[in-house]
Amino acid sequence: MAKLYFKYGCMNSSKSANLLMIKHNYEEQGFKVLLLKPAIDVREGKSVIKSRVGLESACVMVHHLDSIQKLFEENPADIIMVDEAQFLTEAQVDELYEIAFHHNVICFGLLSDFQQRLFEGSKRLLELAESLQEIKTVCKCGRRATINARFDGNGKLIVHGEQVDIGGNEKYKAMCKYCYKSLKEEVEE
Amino acid sequence: MAKLYFKYGCMNSSKSANLLMIKHNYEEQGFKVLLLKPAIDVREGKSVIKSRVGLESACVMVHHLDSIQKLFEENPADIIMVDEAQFLTEAQVDELYEIAFHHNVICFGLLSDFQQRLFEGSKRLLELAESLQEIKTVCKCGRRATINARFDGNGKLIVHGEQVDIGGNEKYKAMCKYCYKSLKEEVEE
Amino acid sequence: MAKLYFKYGCMNSSKSANLLMIKHNYEEQGFKVLLLKPAIDVREGKSVIKSRVGLESACVMVHHLDSIQKLFEENPADIIMVDEAQFLTEAQVDELYEIAFHHNVICFGLLSDFQQRLFEGSKRLLELAESLQEIKTVCKCGRRATINARFDGNGKLIVHGEQVDIGGNEKYKAMCKYCYKSLKEEVEE
Amino acid sequence: MAKLYFKYGCMNSSKSANLLMIKHNYEEQGFKVLLLKPAIDVREGKSVIKSRVGLESACVMVHHLDSIQKLFEENPADIIMVDEAQFLTEAQVDELYEIAFHHNVICFGLLSDFQQRLFEGSKRLLELAESLQEIKTVCKCGRRATINARFDGNGKLIVHGEQVDIGGNEKYKAMCKYCYKSLKEEVEE
Repeated sequence: MAKLYFKYGCMNSSKSANLLMIKHNYEEQGFKVLLLKPAIDVREGKSVIKSRVGLESACVMVHHLDSIQKLFEENPADIIMVDEAQFLTEAQVDELYEIAFHHNVICFGLLSDFQQRLFEGSKRLLELAESLQEIKTVCKCGRRATINARFDGNGKLIVHGEQVDIGGNEKYKAMCKYCYKSLKEEVEE
Repeated sequence: MAKLYFKYGCMNSSKSANLLMIKHNYEEQGFKVLLLKPAIDVREGKSVIKSRVGLESACVMVHHLDSIQKLFEENPADIIMVDEAQFLTEAQVDELYEIAFHHNVICFGLLSDFQQRLFEGSKRLLELAESLQEIKTVCKCGRRATINARFDGNGKLIVHGEQVDIGGNEKYKAMCKYCYKSLKEEVEE
Repeated sequence: MAKLYFKYGCMNSSKSANLLMIKHNYEEQGFKVLLLKPAIDVREGKSVIKSRVGLESACVMVHHLDSIQKLFEENPADIIMVDEAQFLTEAQVDELYEIAFHHNVICFGLLSDFQQRLFEGSKRLLELAESLQEIKTVCKCGRRATINARFDGNGKLIVHGEQVDIGGNEKYKAMCKYCYKSLKEEVEE
Repeated sequence: MAKLYFKYGCMNSSKSANLLMIKHNYEEQGFKVLLLKPAIDVREGKSVIKSRVGLESACVMVHHLDSIQKLFEENPADIIMVDEAQFLTEAQVDELYEIAFHHNVICFGLLSDFQQRLFEGSKRLLELAESLQEIKTVCKCGRRATINARFDGNGKLIVHGEQVDIGGNEKYKAMCKYCYKSLKEEVEE
């Protein structure tokens, strides 16, 4: 029975690497996988999913107003996998929900932003997915990380700003609530 | 290290029974547990958490404008447990998050309503809880249930209406998306 | 698709209460459940599964040389549930594996004895079950418990003896490895 | 608090890739990881953990009579990770259990052999590990795989033989019990 999966995790929790491994496994079994990634910037075209550990794969970009149903018709496959699924629109997640009556759909993404607020795509996935699974990662202190803290160019914690501000290792750190709180209190002094 | 837990599940997934069992276990170990339940009706005072399987326990009601911090000061305990946590306000979940730096807080509740939309309390718990766990239950067909379908007095599926309409076994059924879709298509014909 | 499930947990982790709740849920959905429990003592006949929290239900006893297939033919049902499954023989778990091609079989039991050795039934369930799930419980210190420590009538830790020595709350305690080690070092001094 | 973890999965479930990703994450956070792998062949020395998806890393080989405590003293680290942990001896797992009072130890391996029997290392890990987690993989039919089926050079299922017979993609296939049973019945006709 086909399902809609949402595998969520913090920044640097190896979501993309996990995605690429699962894709590899499906392909070894002879299944065809369509790889999607929401475009943040309208100029992006065909693109690539990369993991820090060194894996990568070409993917189809999904723009804000794209119909996923239409992309799927143009790129038929057995299974759909989506990276950075937090950036999907609500309407796009609704489409994935319908597709997931017939094909497995596996979405990877962040749950919440740097202010601990759900993203639009994540919120709709939490409402509709039949399987929710955390991809765990550790804070520097060894505890499990649950917060995506944002930092400026000087490594200073940022607590106000726009929800979306693309960046990787240097701009975001996955932290536990204890370390995050200490850091926030320092900044606010 | 103290944590904020959110254990979510559909109607009739034995959330209250699970809560009462965990409370029993904590108390056997000598811990004091404060049991809370959001009041839907402002007239409710001290009340009871009941599970269909036959367990029950007195609890403190939380009204819409109550401060949980204040309730906790009036009823000191080692651990806080909350039933029907979907009905908490965002501000109340924020208070539980702060308390959970020092005391374990274990919340049980629904994820989404009969139209597959998150409740206010559930949304905030998904953003803040450090541990998310599904309490699984089965649909009549044997598949896992993920949807809380609402029915009227004649057993007919209802797809429009207010988010909150209290009722138990007779008014709600936990269903899988396949059975729910079939039923919805019948109703809409 | 029918499956063989093994839900394992320490002493006092509410395995029986969980079993009785799941049974209740299945029965509410109209399924018939056969409840089994291995007999330790050959004189036991029809008997009862009881949980400390106050639930109970009649069950069919399984003796060491019983064929579960035969018991199932005499007591037809949609689903089989087994409590104290660690005491099943290897041959009986093999029978459950075959039945689980057609009917869900849900076994609850301990993983290991007071010396951290697998029981016969648990070992075979780990080899054959398609779904393994831990039922968690806490040590007195608040950490997760993983060891079933045995105590004598004076509350002194016992580290040698027979694998099976039936007893409940007073004879066994679920402990974490840290507390268990401290206690063991005290005893061995 | 340090823990002993056992992450088990079938052949080709990406255990090594998962291990290498987690190692990468720890190292990014500044932790030093000691990578171990049991030697099947006594002639093996320093060696490599490779995943089919393309990742690899040098590791220290553990021979049958090696003391892991001694290897750890020679190669100090914050965390120990072990691949192919099913091939550890019972004594070696006992050593890891002791080390895991002070350092996280994360073991990856198979649960059971091609005849659905636990390996020596896996059995001891199930008894001692504080965290058991399945790394899931799918059968060709789409169901979850739980059996490591062995095949000969002509692709014919083998049901008798030695427990250990090293080989990869070509010699072993992860299968669900339904597909495995059909195949076995064909072979036995």
